[in-house]
Amino acid sequence: MARVVVEVMPKQEILDPQGQAIHRALGRLGHEGVSDVRQGKRFELEVSDDVSDTELEKIADSLLANTVIEDWKVVRTSVEAAQ
Amino acid sequence: MARVVVEVMPKQEILDPQGQAIHRALGRLGHEGVSDVRQGKRFELEVSDDVSDTELEKIADSLLANTVIEDWKVVRTSVEAAQ
Repeated sequence: MARVVVEVMPKQEILDPQGQAIHRALGRLGHEGVSDVRQGKRFELEVSDDVSDTELEKIADSLLANTVIEDWKVVRTSVEAAQ
Repeated sequence: MARVVVEVMPKQEILDPQGQAIHRALGRLGHEGVSDVRQGKRFELEVSDDVSDTELEKIADSLLANTVIEDWKVVRTSVEAAQ
């Protein structure tokens, strides 16, 4: 068993209205040291050891992310290292 | 300038219907090696160097996460190391 994290973020050239709203709210609340916020998604998958990197990349690319507007990254972590 | 990532995930004891829906969809699509999926959020913040860890923890705890149902983690990364 392995734990895999898939990080999905809006592409740099895509507007991120959720992140912009958070950025403005932080400014109003006095956190002026924050100059940009982008919001994405984070998936934690428990996968058996025979799942290949290729299969994980296919899952991320075709199912977890919308690649028109989002970038994704697959990160294998050990279950021990995870929170 | 530093890049800070805030990871927000549903607490272990909280049902995660989005993650469960993805898990079921993966099973239907033949990805049977995936035994669990949990979906959370990932925030990327650009912050000036004078923003303290304490301020970042306050931002995560009070604004980015709903601590009744979510856990959060602040990770400082260098801008260079980021994608």
